[in-house]
Amino acid sequence: MAVATQSLEELCINSIRFLAIDAIEKAKSGHPGLPMGAAPMAYVLWDKFMRFNPKNPKWFNRDRFVLSAGHGCMLQYALLYLTGYDSVSIEEIKQFRQWGSRTPGHPENFETSGVEVTTGPLGQGIANGVGLAVAEAHLAARFNKPDLTLVDHYTYVIVGDGCNMEGVSGEAASIAGHWGLGKLIVLYDDNHISIDGSTDVAFTEDVSKRFEAYGWHVLHVENGNTDLDAIAQAIESAKAVTDKPTMIKVTTTIGYGSPNKANTAGIHGAALGGDEIKLTRENLGWNHEPFEIPDDALSHMRKAIERGASYEAEWETTWAQYKTKYPEDAAEFERLISGKLPEGWDKVLPTYTAEDKALATRKHSETCLNKLAPVLPELIGGSADLTHSNLTEIKGFGDFQKGQYQNRNIHFGVREHGMGAICNGIALHGSGLIPYGATFLIFTDYMRAAIRLSALSQAGSIWVMTHDSIGQGEDGPTHQPIETIASLRAIPNLTVIRPADGTECSGAYKMAIEYAHQARPTLMAFSRQNLPNYSTTSIEGVAKGAYAVVDCEGTPDIILIGTGSELSLCVKAAETLTGEGKKVRVVSMPSWELFEEQDAVYRESVLPKAVTKRLSVEAGTSFGWTKYVGTEGDCVSIDRFGASAPGGVCMEKFGFTVDNVLAKAKALLG
Amino acid sequence: MAVATQSLEELCINSIRFLAIDAIEKAKSGHPGLPMGAAPMAYVLWDKFMRFNPKNPKWFNRDRFVLSAGHGCMLQYALLYLTGYDSVSIEEIKQFRQWGSRTPGHPENFETSGVEVTTGPLGQGIANGVGLAVAEAHLAARFNKPDLTLVDHYTYVIVGDGCNMEGVSGEAASIAGHWGLGKLIVLYDDNHISIDGSTDVAFTEDVSKRFEAYGWHVLHVENGNTDLDAIAQAIESAKAVTDKPTMIKVTTTIGYGSPNKANTAGIHGAALGGDEIKLTRENLGWNHEPFEIPDDALSHMRKAIERGASYEAEWETTWAQYKTKYPEDAAEFERLISGKLPEGWDKVLPTYTAEDKALATRKHSETCLNKLAPVLPELIGGSADLTHSNLTEIKGFGDFQKGQYQNRNIHFGVREHGMGAICNGIALHGSGLIPYGATFLIFTDYMRAAIRLSALSQAGSIWVMTHDSIGQGEDGPTHQPIETIASLRAIPNLTVIRPADGTECSGAYKMAIEYAHQARPTLMAFSRQNLPNYSTTSIEGVAKGAYAVVDCEGTPDIILIGTGSELSLCVKAAETLTGEGKKVRVVSMPSWELFEEQDAVYRESVLPKAVTKRLSVEAGTSFGWTKYVGTEGDCVSIDRFGASAPGGVCMEKFGFTVDNVLAKAKALLG
Repeated sequence: MAVATQSLEELCINSIRFLAIDAIEKAKSGHPGLPMGAAPMAYVLWDKFMRFNPKNPKWFNRDRFVLSAGHGCMLQYALLYLTGYDSVSIEEIKQFRQWGSRTPGHPENFETSGVEVTTGPLGQGIANGVGLAVAEAHLAARFNKPDLTLVDHYTYVIVGDGCNMEGVSGEAASIAGHWGLGKLIVLYDDNHISIDGSTDVAFTEDVSKRFEAYGWHVLHVENGNTDLDAIAQAIESAKAVTDKPTMIKVTTTIGYGSPNKANTAGIHGAALGGDEIKLTRENLGWNHEPFEIPDDALSHMRKAIERGASYEAEWETTWAQYKTKYPEDAAEFERLISGKLPEGWDKVLPTYTAEDKALATRKHSETCLNKLAPVLPELIGGSADLTHSNLTEIKGFGDFQKGQYQNRNIHFGVREHGMGAICNGIALHGSGLIPYGATFLIFTDYMRAAIRLSALSQAGSIWVMTHDSIGQGEDGPTHQPIETIASLRAIPNLTVIRPADGTECSGAYKMAIEYAHQARPTLMAFSRQNLPNYSTTSIEGVAKGAYAVVDCEGTPDIILIGTGSELSLCVKAAETLTGEGKKVRVVSMPSWELFEEQDAVYRESVLPKAVTKRLSVEAGTSFGWTKYVGTEGDCVSIDRFGASAPGGVCMEKFGFTVDNVLAKAKALLG
Repeated sequence: MAVATQSLEELCINSIRFLAIDAIEKAKSGHPGLPMGAAPMAYVLWDKFMRFNPKNPKWFNRDRFVLSAGHGCMLQYALLYLTGYDSVSIEEIKQFRQWGSRTPGHPENFETSGVEVTTGPLGQGIANGVGLAVAEAHLAARFNKPDLTLVDHYTYVIVGDGCNMEGVSGEAASIAGHWGLGKLIVLYDDNHISIDGSTDVAFTEDVSKRFEAYGWHVLHVENGNTDLDAIAQAIESAKAVTDKPTMIKVTTTIGYGSPNKANTAGIHGAALGGDEIKLTRENLGWNHEPFEIPDDALSHMRKAIERGASYEAEWETTWAQYKTKYPEDAAEFERLISGKLPEGWDKVLPTYTAEDKALATRKHSETCLNKLAPVLPELIGGSADLTHSNLTEIKGFGDFQKGQYQNRNIHFGVREHGMGAICNGIALHGSGLIPYGATFLIFTDYMRAAIRLSALSQAGSIWVMTHDSIGQGEDGPTHQPIETIASLRAIPNLTVIRPADGTECSGAYKMAIEYAHQARPTLMAFSRQNLPNYSTTSIEGVAKGAYAVVDCEGTPDIILIGTGSELSLCVKAAETLTGEGKKVRVVSMPSWELFEEQDAVYRESVLPKAVTKRLSVEAGTSFGWTKYVGTEGDCVSIDRFGASAPGGVCMEKFGFTVDNVLAKAKALLG
């Protein structure tokens, strides 16, 4: 076999390719095409541009890298291994896609140090990247000084055709262009192949022109397979343009190097197989054993360790100066990135009594946000074009806009899904920022993939959802949540809270903030309509998920369980029933998840097994409620779509009345 | 009050405006800004271009109109009333947004004849419009003859800024450009205002350039407020370009005519109020009583009735000729649009016995689709770039592509949400077409808003979802459904079916097709992995939602309830338990919804109250299962996110084994 001598660069690039090929072959599962085609751009990026410290992957000022085309994860694992991260050893690569490995089938930030965000569901990564760039721009604007630059890094994203077809990437790219996020640099692996074959079958738009329309700086590397200089020059040009994000279209050949499978869908999502690997080795002049990396390549790539130490040392010098010159800012910065909440932050949260004015819980949410914003400078967020319906403006903190990155009110536009993924990116920046995103509860359907990813990838995003039931009213069934709360409760690791009054709203925010700092997302559902306050609701009660707000002596004859706006129906019905000599407990149950986290003794104390006559009252589906009311209990619920009418009329017509609660309760009591 | 004489056109346009203003004022709820600003373009479109018959709203060859900016629904109701639809009387307009009216807060096709699709959730309407245009192009290609044009109509869509910010609209617009749907004409009400204020806060991209990038024909009407000729000329130009969809940007002033609120967010979503209405009346020279339409305007607009009768008569002439010259095609066309299924269509669905080879249910799904495609020419659909994973190709029926519209395999690209909304549009074309859309089950999260709308708006779309559990394997938690099935079961009017073997797949398709013709969507969940067949499963059993596939004499000691891939665990566990002398029933429960539709006697016969020892086995969350296993029952389930490993390993590690089923069953048996 006559093999041309390979340059060091070729050796490094082929090292990436063959780590991917060999790992995928061993697993008989994976996507070799992208790593093979995108290896040159990834090599140039990681070897010549990326500032990171493999031995301290969380070093604050690192450039962020997102592989939005997450199915090509072997590309990322190869880079992590070659540059010297401890998280990905060669043994881990040999365990690609196996139980318990650090090299799962898509990049998972919570599994593999060096992976910034969880990708795989297409389009999420680039939108997360926008969030990472938002976090950088925001912190830079807040903390950098004319003489000392503390926060200064790029966010690099590799996207594929699939990412660019997804609507969420368009949403995020549009707002990123609007914001002019100059340190966001996206490399588009333009390989013309998706799973169904040539992109000619479904994707013939002019992507570059579209990104120009979004206000991006757009470049094209015509030969991404071998023209490393062109790739490097493009990244340089991207960095030189500071007021626009850059999209570099890098035209590549999927599965580059494979004589028979390159440029076909056959190499997108399946191992090459022994014969083709043999031919690919010959074709690329690779005669190393599987998983063997030539010393020259490894030692070259591992220079990243030394470079990383030097980057970090440099930054530490700046940081030391900063601490001396700007001690207050330094203290705040340190607290932020430490992930610690300021002492006594939760004291600002108000409580209420029955004498306080009835208000919509969305209004209480506004109060909480505005009380918290001054004491929690990490709070940043906004709404998907419903600011004054969601009531999410934090007053006095300005609008986050191009050149106004220090501000904390974000206008996401009508882009729920993009908002969700951007918030996740802000949370996963790891700088202590707590992002919140708001829309009508029903439109969680638009951003469900991002909400799920907040739960999966441990992003402490806070989802502020208003207009949480048919009480929404006139907008009608397209805008009225029915199954929405249930569908969100079903998501693992997501805490859903539906508070009943002002005090419970404070309780909800207390949990949401605490959980955000524990990398757990919370979704809060607030009413459009006014609700009375109670003197027996409590912040502590919310923390336990469910608790009695009206009680009786001894074992209750019946337990009424209310959430959110329907708690008041339960309380009123209980008054009548008590007047009729019944022993009634009313349980406020703002959060199933928080209740499930309590011990069995507490749960039994709230919902004793002995009491089988239980009635839940919630303006939503009965789906799932049998768990708490039991097979002998009943639900006041709505199991059909709603209707357009004033909210009060909807509530009445669909049975959310004291009379109906009483009727159902009495039917249970027999 | 000095008022200039109004032209007839101005009178008509102001009639639209004041119907909206008055209705919204009476309701104290609604969005007057869009109807006021878009009235001129709507007037020109409906008066000069739209072919429809108000007295036969379902006349087949009508132009379709979609108000994608559905919050402006008073615009549409005003048009329906003025042009003489029976569905919207002046009394109905006075009942805007009230309980039981035909004028709900967003357009609902199932409430108001003349409304084609349900809009309101932004971006859905334009994507539905793409589906309507697909249906037209497809039927035209199949049925039109060189000498007789049977199918020939435009699809007109009005979109707003909000629609254009949503990712789903971008997905749909991209694929519409790819397909070159020349009879799709979108008018973009470019009014620069969304709920948060000026679009400058979040939406500064060049929308026209973006649509050009998608391959659209793009026009601009600079003065959409008064330049009716320019609007008309633009629509003419749009019609003249037959190989591209057209987007006409019509720059307007939101709330045109209101002296103090025009061009502000204040008029977007709130009634004008008495004082401002007075000023607007003066400003526009309108001195008619509220809800009063000048005779000149009404009689002019009502000419639509005569025109409509003439359009229909013309088409009937063509149709009569067609029936004579092309009787076979005519018979097929007639059957299609009648919504009747062909005699005996379901006989092609195969059944299996325990001796048949174990196959993945996605493979059985492929068989069903390919058996059905020849006998059901109305079946049209495809996958979001996972054709060969979802196994949804119907062989021999070609790819639906530009100039190949007669074909029935649609490549949607990686655009799940767009796919969903396009399928809904095809279904709501009302021509008997049955659309199906496919992706991995987990990615229903991306298209949930469209799935919900299929259920709400009575679109008989079929959702073909594969890789339905952690059995999916190596792709890991981002690709493994956990809560997905539960979250879909929670949607009203959606039937979810998770078949266990080949025969149950046939049962699932039988229901899905029948329901599609009853305007009910069905979602089917299929396995990636091979599953054994049973001789006791049945098509009839699936239709009942749950039924015994293994049974005992007398009252069972325990009932094991399995769905999909986990039925086999139940059957094997039952063998062991029976061998140990227990009386065991195994219930296969492919569909909760179908089971709930059975009468109480049947339900009791399958799950008798007396048997409280019940164990559900489903590779998904336990959420909701208490309803069927009771508080004394148990679940073999997974209530956390999955992991990347071979599917069999995941199943085993997460407890989906016969041993674990046995252990839990024995614990219940005590």
